Amino acid sequence: MASKVSPDGERGFIVPVGGAERKIRDPTILRRFVELCGGRGASIVVIPTASQAKDTGRRYERIFRDLDVRDVRAISLETRADCERSEVLDTLERADGVFLTGGNQLRLSTTLGGTPVAQLIRRRNAAGVHVAGTSAGAAFLCQHMIAFGDEGPTPRSGMVTLAPGLGLTNSVIIDQHFRQRDRLGRLLTALAYNPFATGIGIDEDTAAFLGPDDWIEVLGSGALTIIDPSKLDFSAMDSTPEGEPVSLVGIRLHILSAGDSYNISKRQAAPSAAKIAKARERTG
Amino acid sequence: MASKVSPDGERGFIVPVGGAERKIRDPTILRRFVELCGGRGASIVVIPTASQAKDTGRRYERIFRDLDVRDVRAISLETRADCERSEVLDTLERADGVFLTGGNQLRLSTTLGGTPVAQLIRRRNAAGVHVAGTSAGAAFLCQHMIAFGDEGPTPRSGMVTLAPGLGLTNSVIIDQHFRQRDRLGRLLTALAYNPFATGIGIDEDTAAFLGPDDWIEVLGSGALTIIDPSKLDFSAMDSTPEGEPVSLVGIRLHILSAGDSYNISKRQAAPSAAKIAKARERTG
Repeated sequence: MASKVSPDGERGFIVPVGGAERKIRDPTILRRFVELCGGRGASIVVIPTASQAKDTGRRYERIFRDLDVRDVRAISLETRADCERSEVLDTLERADGVFLTGGNQLRLSTTLGGTPVAQLIRRRNAAGVHVAGTSAGAAFLCQHMIAFGDEGPTPRSGMVTLAPGLGLTNSVIIDQHFRQRDRLGRLLTALAYNPFATGIGIDEDTAAFLGPDDWIEVLGSGALTIIDPSKLDFSAMDSTPEGEPVSLVGIRLHILSAGDSYNISKRQAAPSAAKIAKARERTG
Repeated sequence: MASKVSPDGERGFIVPVGGAERKIRDPTILRRFVELCGGRGASIVVIPTASQAKDTGRRYERIFRDLDVRDVRAISLETRADCERSEVLDTLERADGVFLTGGNQLRLSTTLGGTPVAQLIRRRNAAGVHVAGTSAGAAFLCQHMIAFGDEGPTPRSGMVTLAPGLGLTNSVIIDQHFRQRDRLGRLLTALAYNPFATGIGIDEDTAAFLGPDDWIEVLGSGALTIIDPSKLDFSAMDSTPEGEPVSLVGIRLHILSAGDSYNISKRQAAPSAAKIAKARERTG
């Protein structure tokens, strides 16, 4: 369960990234994350647990150093015992930002889930520390995590497997590599199980900066697909045999790109002022 | 997300029942629920949404009346629009206890999820109202709900489908008809995805009375199977192909029956005083 925000401070940003974010030339998303955390004076911790590649942690250390962050450190959390080590907890305790790399989200949930590291990240995020994750790292951020599923645009009964995630927020369910891997169907299926959450499909090199005020700002070169099932008129989810398409009536859908924003508690989309002005010019 | 407990009051009990509870002769579980809610002066609301049988609501009205409850009422919530009706919300607002019948838990989550009725039940439970559910109604109580899955004692990758539930508690994942339908495997699989929660497998005619002090008391003729994965040493969950058995090392298991109790925050089991005394006699 998400920790309670301290009465003095504000919750930190939660930043799911759709994977394959630009890292060298014009790394808009990573640069914005660094700025949020305090710029060159920031202390950033990288958690490469999701990845099977040995050099993922080192690689992100270099990337953040190229963005002028002096204090960046990848911590190796390969076992659940690693997630109880006091020097790991001390490092996290001092961080301004935490970045979870891509890979396999089940490796994150099975290794970190229920350990002091997971509890500390939740507590620090509630106290103002910013937490970003890309690809598998993005999926893991939420209470309800998409663990795996099938491709395709049509929701089908049983096509997606949910698992408990890190639990920084309960309001959204995140899917990533969204357009690139044709994941509309599995996100719709996940939402149809219980239409209380908002679905956020994130394209590659795209990020949702979810602030403490419940506004999401879109950044990057792709789009956010927002699925709001709160006004669902009809759902056949409970009576559809496995593998068959699920009838769903009355879903609201928004496609948002860089500069647009969305309020997850008010369920309200706001295109950027620049886009609204341009649209007015055309009709004027 | 679970509502916050009001500073003045205590959270109400959360009472998952394993299904097939005794209803006529010696209905221990239902009688205890009625007592909790205030006895014959209690106001109890029955939600028969999970069931496809037309008379489930009326049937439970009769059962509770036979237990001397004068003010019992089944409310018909067949559509999401029903879950916004003001007379329904008024009825729930006045209830001392809410009882969710069995059937299909996906019918509960797709119909009630994200509606004012679900929000109100969470808020009332946080303010002291007791909420019980049997079978599908039990599965639905938690944040992470087992929607469906396969039988068998061995955890296998992909054998269980989780979905967001009502969200009264995030600490446990519940499975019911536990011994009768051979569900150890699917509960272990659900927990292996993220070992932060405690698994509670509930036999038929058995209930877990989860109090505001985080103690569960067992009632009824069967057993509670408690699965505590918090000290898991090894899990192959993230690397096991679909359908294959998942290696899990270091799970703690408790079997508890009537009178025994378990603390979900301390992860501590306590056999009843009577059982401890009897065991002493045998060794004495």
